[in-house]
Amino acid sequence: MQTIIELQQLIETEIQKVEYPAHPAKLYEPIRYIMSLGGKRIRPVLLLLSSKLFNNDVTIAIEAALAIEIFHNFTLVHDDIMDNAPLRRGKDTVHIIWGLNNAILSGDVMMVEANKHLTALDSSVLKQALYCFNSTAQGVCEGQQLDTEFEQRTDVSIDEYINMIRLKTAVLVGGAMKLGAIVAGAETADAELLYNFGENFGIAFQLQDDILDVYGDPLKFGKQVGGDIISNKQTFLLLKLKELATVEDLELLEKQANNTDYLEKVDCITSLYSKYKIREIAVTQMMLHQDIAFKALAQVSVREDKKSEIENLAKSLIDRDH
Amino acid sequence: MQTIIELQQLIETEIQKVEYPAHPAKLYEPIRYIMSLGGKRIRPVLLLLSSKLFNNDVTIAIEAALAIEIFHNFTLVHDDIMDNAPLRRGKDTVHIIWGLNNAILSGDVMMVEANKHLTALDSSVLKQALYCFNSTAQGVCEGQQLDTEFEQRTDVSIDEYINMIRLKTAVLVGGAMKLGAIVAGAETADAELLYNFGENFGIAFQLQDDILDVYGDPLKFGKQVGGDIISNKQTFLLLKLKELATVEDLELLEKQANNTDYLEKVDCITSLYSKYKIREIAVTQMMLHQDIAFKALAQVSVREDKKSEIENLAKSLIDRDH
Repeated sequence: MQTIIELQQLIETEIQKVEYPAHPAKLYEPIRYIMSLGGKRIRPVLLLLSSKLFNNDVTIAIEAALAIEIFHNFTLVHDDIMDNAPLRRGKDTVHIIWGLNNAILSGDVMMVEANKHLTALDSSVLKQALYCFNSTAQGVCEGQQLDTEFEQRTDVSIDEYINMIRLKTAVLVGGAMKLGAIVAGAETADAELLYNFGENFGIAFQLQDDILDVYGDPLKFGKQVGGDIISNKQTFLLLKLKELATVEDLELLEKQANNTDYLEKVDCITSLYSKYKIREIAVTQMMLHQDIAFKALAQVSVREDKKSEIENLAKSLIDRDH
Repeated sequence: MQTIIELQQLIETEIQKVEYPAHPAKLYEPIRYIMSLGGKRIRPVLLLLSSKLFNNDVTIAIEAALAIEIFHNFTLVHDDIMDNAPLRRGKDTVHIIWGLNNAILSGDVMMVEANKHLTALDSSVLKQALYCFNSTAQGVCEGQQLDTEFEQRTDVSIDEYINMIRLKTAVLVGGAMKLGAIVAGAETADAELLYNFGENFGIAFQLQDDILDVYGDPLKFGKQVGGDIISNKQTFLLLKLKELATVEDLELLEKQANNTDYLEKVDCITSLYSKYKIREIAVTQMMLHQDIAFKALAQVSVREDKKSEIENLAKSLIDRDH
């Protein structure tokens, strides 16, 4: 049985084995660059684990895993343009190094590359895999659109926020797991259950991200604790606070928006979070999605012990403190 | 037998029938907008004509035709960003109306939409169709990359230029015709011949475009004759002139680059074209590709009379005077 680390290594090796044309160099260099920046490769690992539930030979799912990881990195390249982000995993973003036009175009080619990997799948599962992949890709684009729009709005509801993170983040996790199941020839019902697991796990993961940004272990977190507060980011916590706070507290919150004394700002808003038990509410919401996820996984028609790898990985990702 | 106009109308109708989600509105409005701007729909018409060579029922090829036309329009949206183009078919470009981020993201979704239409193809031809489509899409991106790079260079050779227009323009025409053949169940050899026809016809078409920009009928041309000269665009004509001109004439050419008296500039450079018989050389090069195209079409193993629609359309597009 392969461990998670072995699967991560397998994916790294396969990513390195992908050959892109030498020319035009500026079109393909950014692809090699972004794909080499690493990351935990959670989506392709989950795809392989999902596939392994139905077929122990993970090699049948490698092309699908590459498609998902390349697609994910394509979205990072284009998102970083839209978000004006200078850094990605501590390194310069593609558009900073190669410029806007190259970042757009290399991203476009990555989408084509992802589709090329999918096309290599066995004909017996190809159509179903494509339906899954395309609908996933469309959802992710919708999520990014909503995220961009929300930045301009002050009236985003909790439901809208959950739907946005569902589309932007969780749909791809669900899609990866469904794709793994499809490739391994799983029944439609099982593939759907794994989609539901992945989607709800993805939402829980993102909510945990919001929580850790405020309450994570500063020594382990790797980025500034309170970064979301400082940048006025509309997270689950902030939106929930806005929903519950009194008029006076909303005014206090409003005043903090432009406070450049970041320590004071983080302190003040964290106090408001405590006052309204925002952390507890966020944890409850997270647990809700985690429960839905695990209930879906429990219903997948394979032996329970086969699911332990997925369960353990999901738990370790949600129970992280950084 | 459907006429070209009937096929164009069929495609228009099918384009209008495509339903995009209502939300997020800003993601899908640009798609409806760019797809409604019209154009001659040459690529999908050629795809249908190619398919008709092997199967008289064009409805089997509609999804592939939509995929090609949506993909083509996706490239227009992203190219217009890269080229800073304010207008497309006389209307504001997508990034002018909706902004950069929306133009990137709506373009991305169009690529997904194109793939969704392809996925609807019959399973028996799906894999081959995807190989063709993905390799076409990749070529088009490479062509756009080369075009962008050439704008910064002063040493582009004629061979490089032909390769660039092959990738940027002709590969998609070839890919459309090959896709039409694949969908209709043609033999691989015939599909390849139709690809060769399309690619070489596409190159001839683009060379004719370069020629008409200088020598087109001003009353019919619809844009400023000499526009390429005024904007110092590196066309086949300019590159050929640079290859053949004496040092003195190259200096003269250099001086004209910043001449804001456009009448004088067009006059001077057109005189240089005459001196070196650039128009004749360009026409010869165009005829060369046209000949290769028609020879490939002649070898396709269907009755000659079936090919007349394609021949007539191609001839009318190349023999145009505007």
